[in-house]
Amino acid sequence: MDLSPLINHIRNYISLEFSDADLLLLQEYIPIVHYKKGSILLKEGEISKDSYFNFRGCVRMFYNINGVEKTANFYTENKFITVFDSYTQKKPSEVYLECIEDCTLAKISFDSEQELLKKFPKLEVLSRLILEEELSTYQNIVATFVSLSPEERYVNLMENRPELLNRIPQYYLSSYLGVSPESLSRIRKRIFSK
Amino acid sequence: MDLSPLINHIRNYISLEFSDADLLLLQEYIPIVHYKKGSILLKEGEISKDSYFNFRGCVRMFYNINGVEKTANFYTENKFITVFDSYTQKKPSEVYLECIEDCTLAKISFDSEQELLKKFPKLEVLSRLILEEELSTYQNIVATFVSLSPEERYVNLMENRPELLNRIPQYYLSSYLGVSPESLSRIRKRIFSK
Repeated sequence: MDLSPLINHIRNYISLEFSDADLLLLQEYIPIVHYKKGSILLKEGEISKDSYFNFRGCVRMFYNINGVEKTANFYTENKFITVFDSYTQKKPSEVYLECIEDCTLAKISFDSEQELLKKFPKLEVLSRLILEEELSTYQNIVATFVSLSPEERYVNLMENRPELLNRIPQYYLSSYLGVSPESLSRIRKRIFSK
Repeated sequence: MDLSPLINHIRNYISLEFSDADLLLLQEYIPIVHYKKGSILLKEGEISKDSYFNFRGCVRMFYNINGVEKTANFYTENKFITVFDSYTQKKPSEVYLECIEDCTLAKISFDSEQELLKKFPKLEVLSRLILEEELSTYQNIVATFVSLSPEERYVNLMENRPELLNRIPQYYLSSYLGVSPESLSRIRKRIFSK
C-alpha cells in the first residue's frame, strides 16, 4: 500500500505535484501502519507524538471519567486524527485513542511534520486549509451539544454521518450521545415509529 | 488606537518584524472598529465576511433554537473571533455574534486576509499556529460537554476563565452551561457553601 489515498486527499485542497524523489521522501516520513481492532494509539497522561490520517477503519476518541468511558469522536476514512493540545503543546493527553475496527493509518510524528513543512513550504497552506476545516467540524460539534437534545443529535448523525450508525456498536453510540444504552433504544424506537 | 495589541499578540507565535510601510499597509487592511454594547456582528443566515481580534470587550456567540438563545462561546480580550464554516466556506451562518459589552475589535475581511497571506507568506505559519491553538480550545470545550456535569463545568470555568464569572450576566452563563437560571443559582449555592 502506498500514500495515494493521502496524496489524493491533499489534492482536494491544493494543487501540489510531487516528483518521484519527493514521494520516496514522503513515504520515509509518513509510514503506513496496520493496527488490530482494540489497539490503543494513545493513553490518558501520555504525550501524543503522532498525528494520523485514516486510510481504513475507525478510531474512537474517549475520556475515562472515574472509570466511565465518555466518547468524544469517531474518526473514519479520510479523516485526520490529532489530539492538538498534546501533539502541538506537549501536554499530557486527557483522551484515549482506540482502534475499534482493524485500521490502516498513515502516521506522522511531530518532528517529521516540522521537517516536511520546511522542505515543502506549500504544505503550510495545506495545513491552514485542513485546520480551518477541522475547526468548522468542531464548531459544529459544539453546536450540536449546545443546541440539540440527545434525540435531535441522533437525527443529526443520521443526516450527516449515516455510515456511522451502521458500523458503530450501540454502546459506543450511546456514550457519544451522552445517554444510557436504554435511552438510546427508546430514542431509536421513537424515531423509527414516526 | 493602533494595531499594537494585535502585533504584540502575533509576536507570541512568530518573530516577524514589520517595517513602517508594512504597518501602514496592515492598518489599511485591518481597521479598528468600536461597537456599542448590543451590536450584532453577524446574524443567522448571513455569510460571515469578517474575522475579528478582540482588543476590548466581550462578544457572545449564540444559536437561536425555536426562539431560545443557546450560548456557545464568549470571546474576551486577545481572542480571535471567526465563524469558520461561514467565513471560509461561504455557508450561511448558523450562529449570531453579539457584543455584550462595548467592544473594540480589529476587523479583517476574508479577501484582505487572502491578500495579506500573499504579501507576507510568513503569516501562513502564524495562521497554522493560531488555528492549532483554536483547535485545542475547541477539543477542550467538547471535552467539557462530553465529560462534565453542568456543576463541574461551572467549576471548570472558575479554574480556567475566572474573569468570565464576574463579567458575564448570569442568564448568559446559565445558557452557556445549558441549565436554567434557577439551576445555576442552586449550583452556585452548593459550590460556595462547600
